[in-house]
Amino acid sequence: MLGRSLTLFFSSLLFSVVVVASQCSVTGLPLVRNISEIPLDNYGRGGLSHITIAGSVLHGMKEVEVWLQTFSPGSRTPIHRHSCEEVFVVLKGSGTLYIASSHGKHPGKPQEHFIFSNSTFQIPVNDVHQVWNTNEHEDLQVLVIISRPPVKVFIYEDWFMPHTAARLKYPYYWDEQCFQAPVKDEL
Amino acid sequence: MLGRSLTLFFSSLLFSVVVVASQCSVTGLPLVRNISEIPLDNYGRGGLSHITIAGSVLHGMKEVEVWLQTFSPGSRTPIHRHSCEEVFVVLKGSGTLYIASSHGKHPGKPQEHFIFSNSTFQIPVNDVHQVWNTNEHEDLQVLVIISRPPVKVFIYEDWFMPHTAARLKYPYYWDEQCFQAPVKDEL
Repeated sequence: MLGRSLTLFFSSLLFSVVVVASQCSVTGLPLVRNISEIPLDNYGRGGLSHITIAGSVLHGMKEVEVWLQTFSPGSRTPIHRHSCEEVFVVLKGSGTLYIASSHGKHPGKPQEHFIFSNSTFQIPVNDVHQVWNTNEHEDLQVLVIISRPPVKVFIYEDWFMPHTAARLKYPYYWDEQCFQAPVKDEL
Repeated sequence: MLGRSLTLFFSSLLFSVVVVASQCSVTGLPLVRNISEIPLDNYGRGGLSHITIAGSVLHGMKEVEVWLQTFSPGSRTPIHRHSCEEVFVVLKGSGTLYIASSHGKHPGKPQEHFIFSNSTFQIPVNDVHQVWNTNEHEDLQVLVIISRPPVKVFIYEDWFMPHTAARLKYPYYWDEQCFQAPVKDEL
């Protein structure tokens, strides 16, 4: 009885590992992919919908990564920084970009910039920033391009937290599952 | 009379240099830019409309570059390769991606892939490829992301030209004007 339970347990464990591995496998993906068939998730963050269009962990990119993100009204990114280049292209809606330089001991009061459909902006390497859908009536949809994937994000609780106290989140939300997959070989 | 002509000549030359310099200046650009206000051009290539959304030469990017391109029915890129990563996001229309690996002495007969609105594909580093609007009725609009800007492009006359005979086009069409601007100091 115990033997059968153990067999069942290990079978289901093996099944889980295989499922995760196939979701995370770079090989076997078609060259041309339908974006509407790529899985989207909020990764536990209310109001977010994230799709990795071309990613390091998921698609073997080494130098650039492309995301499609939708923020429902009121939702936002954390206040954060990363040592890579980042370009936003706003596809729908509007909102606010908050941005502060990385000079000084903490970010301090950020500049505010209105962002809108068909606008673009780039975040200087290591500048602390936050994108917020401050439009109460409409989703904010952005295409995001970063260099040096997978992204290493330092998160701030507020704009006056010292840079040295910002918390590293690595792998980031959407890289977590597949980033960890190789470790499962040790089972 | 000759003196006056020469003065006029040098004045207009100086004016041209200043105009080019200001078009090419990275400083003074607003952080958030309206894409519909960014200049578009065909750079002498019929059927093309190109906008550099975020560029190395134009906007100081060092690691990634983003273009918005529209191909009228029948128009296409040259057959080419580059040693950088490249991601396409098809925003409108449809067409064909022709692609061949960089192994062997020449590209050879390429694979054909149907590309369509809301699809994405990435070009492996150095693979020879061509994007062609093979839809007779509709423009093909793509967002293009490359790494390692500004792009160095090797152009092939056909799929059976040896890799070693491909012609380097650097700076590329849209980088030409501003890439050359610093040289004008020598005047």
